[in-house]
Amino acid sequence: MRTRLKQHKNKHPSDKGNEELGALRDQIDGIDEKIVSLLSERQQIVEQVVAFKKANNLPIYHPAREEDLISGRRRQGEEAGLDPDFVEDLYRSIIRRSRVEQASRMSLKSVRPGAVVLIVGGKGEMGRYFMKWFGDAGYEVRTMGRKEWDDAERLCNGTDLVILSVPIDNTGEIAHQIAPCLPKKAVLADLTSLKEKPLKAMMEAHPGPVLGLHPLFGPSTSTLDKQIIVATPGRDDSACQWILDQFVSWGSIIVTADAREHDEIMHIVQGLRHFATFTFGSFLRRRQADLPRSLEFSSPIYRLEIGMVGRLFAQDPGLYYEIIMASPRRLALLREYMASMCEDMELLEKGDKSLFRDEFAKIAEWFGPFSDQAMRESTYLINKLIERF
Amino acid sequence: MRTRLKQHKNKHPSDKGNEELGALRDQIDGIDEKIVSLLSERQQIVEQVVAFKKANNLPIYHPAREEDLISGRRRQGEEAGLDPDFVEDLYRSIIRRSRVEQASRMSLKSVRPGAVVLIVGGKGEMGRYFMKWFGDAGYEVRTMGRKEWDDAERLCNGTDLVILSVPIDNTGEIAHQIAPCLPKKAVLADLTSLKEKPLKAMMEAHPGPVLGLHPLFGPSTSTLDKQIIVATPGRDDSACQWILDQFVSWGSIIVTADAREHDEIMHIVQGLRHFATFTFGSFLRRRQADLPRSLEFSSPIYRLEIGMVGRLFAQDPGLYYEIIMASPRRLALLREYMASMCEDMELLEKGDKSLFRDEFAKIAEWFGPFSDQAMRESTYLINKLIERF
Repeated sequence: MRTRLKQHKNKHPSDKGNEELGALRDQIDGIDEKIVSLLSERQQIVEQVVAFKKANNLPIYHPAREEDLISGRRRQGEEAGLDPDFVEDLYRSIIRRSRVEQASRMSLKSVRPGAVVLIVGGKGEMGRYFMKWFGDAGYEVRTMGRKEWDDAERLCNGTDLVILSVPIDNTGEIAHQIAPCLPKKAVLADLTSLKEKPLKAMMEAHPGPVLGLHPLFGPSTSTLDKQIIVATPGRDDSACQWILDQFVSWGSIIVTADAREHDEIMHIVQGLRHFATFTFGSFLRRRQADLPRSLEFSSPIYRLEIGMVGRLFAQDPGLYYEIIMASPRRLALLREYMASMCEDMELLEKGDKSLFRDEFAKIAEWFGPFSDQAMRESTYLINKLIERF
Repeated sequence: MRTRLKQHKNKHPSDKGNEELGALRDQIDGIDEKIVSLLSERQQIVEQVVAFKKANNLPIYHPAREEDLISGRRRQGEEAGLDPDFVEDLYRSIIRRSRVEQASRMSLKSVRPGAVVLIVGGKGEMGRYFMKWFGDAGYEVRTMGRKEWDDAERLCNGTDLVILSVPIDNTGEIAHQIAPCLPKKAVLADLTSLKEKPLKAMMEAHPGPVLGLHPLFGPSTSTLDKQIIVATPGRDDSACQWILDQFVSWGSIIVTADAREHDEIMHIVQGLRHFATFTFGSFLRRRQADLPRSLEFSSPIYRLEIGMVGRLFAQDPGLYYEIIMASPRRLALLREYMASMCEDMELLEKGDKSLFRDEFAKIAEWFGPFSDQAMRESTYLINKLIERF
């Protein structure tokens, strides 16, 4: 900053001018200092709110209170000559921060004190992840790895919940192996990303409560706040309810679905999407595209899109293999996708703009109001990206 | 909020408890009120800074001052028990806001007072967009549509800059038609998304200064702040410099490139990327995928990815046709892409996990450190998305 000012000092403003600018900047710094100390004061009061909620078993997430707070600040901001959207944006950040902190402090609380949770495959990444959450909440958590099968009876004894956190191909087999050791009342659950087959296997193996779970996030997620878990009910929903309540108390959102519906949607949401991303990255490498230079030429949207591709390759190949290859049904869908692309390519080869327009219009119509919403959301994010990087 | 509290009132906290929570919330509201009025005070001082900068021809964007300000607040926040990343995040929003407002106030300033700008095709969206920017900055702006060719000589008379904002296929022809009417010293520029051919045509047609421009954003962009414009120099760079200076003063970033290099990169950045997005949307429609339900099942990352697809179809089909079909070279690249996908598909069909891992590792290595950076950036955005929607 100083060098820059000096450059201009000789060119334009007088020394008096520089003093004037300096004085204004000092005023801004003074205001900013006050804002930051108010934020710290705010955090301390939020901590008291957390302590109170915890002592009284009140929920953390209080949408109505949040919306009240935000409309109040919007109104005040508008009257004071600020853009209300800007004020809302700031307050969404402040509130989420406070919610995440509350959740991390309250996660110690279990909805079923004293319950025993066994995680089969607890040495894998996802197993360790849930072990930590259940452990922090005060549950007695046991894990069982491949080498501990001899000890299965002892480990299963007195469990209230057994979670299978093993590769999808082994889930059915392991369900059958472990089930005979389980107490009848124990809930048997799994975490696989397809649900129809594993759920069926668990139902056959265990006569007690059964619950399919599919957490739509990976073990790198530091908070469960607003993270989605799909629950596919198996048997005895009321006996399984406390598990869902526990996830909700950690901030997660539970979406309930039939196993078949879940799998159909996941073929697209996970299989197809990751295949498309994988093949795009693969092509960039085959072409030896000049990635750094292309990023210099990037609009924020391209940067974001290419970031989505790069992101995949920072993660575990085994996980993506399982997701892309999850089932023969999924592979068939990928073939359909390729055929559909060929059709689009043929359309392009015709070089007829009006044919393209027609096709485009059909797709736009199919997307319906989602397109506009997506435009708004992604424009918002692009601005965030510009702001930050 | 009130209903919720009532529900719990009978179950848990005493009336005294509710009062306690209410008192804490009042304290938070009091703090928030002070923060918002400090923000408004801050804005007023920023306006004085703008006025001063404008009067003294100082630049708006002052990276060093911004970084100083942010490190100061981070330090203070950390000492006061706040997460410094959280403080930085808030301040990036506040600062960008202030920068954008400064830019919009200062855009009235022209770097070449009195210059005359003619926009050929000024009735199209992009033409109108730049007409507004140049007009607001105080330039004399003229436009010429299809029906005004008879008037070309008068419109070109005394111009300093002629911008061709016409479809890429017509750019060469129009350059040849308009060039004879131009003053020798006038800069001839275009805005097309490929540069090699249009630049060549402009160079042949006009003996004076020539400049290729490719703005990497659309007419819906409300601010030019940090938006990229690629400049491909044609002839007499120094005579063209004021135009680039003007864009910089509006907040844009200029990337200079050889026309051929530009086009090579754009085949991937625009052609390939948009083709991939188009075909994905096209397939979702052919399959009649259950979009709303799939969004309920969405991790924030899928929501973002599908948003990128939806976003395309909220825009102008003609524009995307031009981008995807820009040249035979580009179409050939798309064919290569399809072939590469088929290769990937064959690999998957083998169902061999270790082959997949090897291929994955090669691509990850090719992406190099960008993957981790992309992971960080996209994780940041995902949190923003969770916060906001």
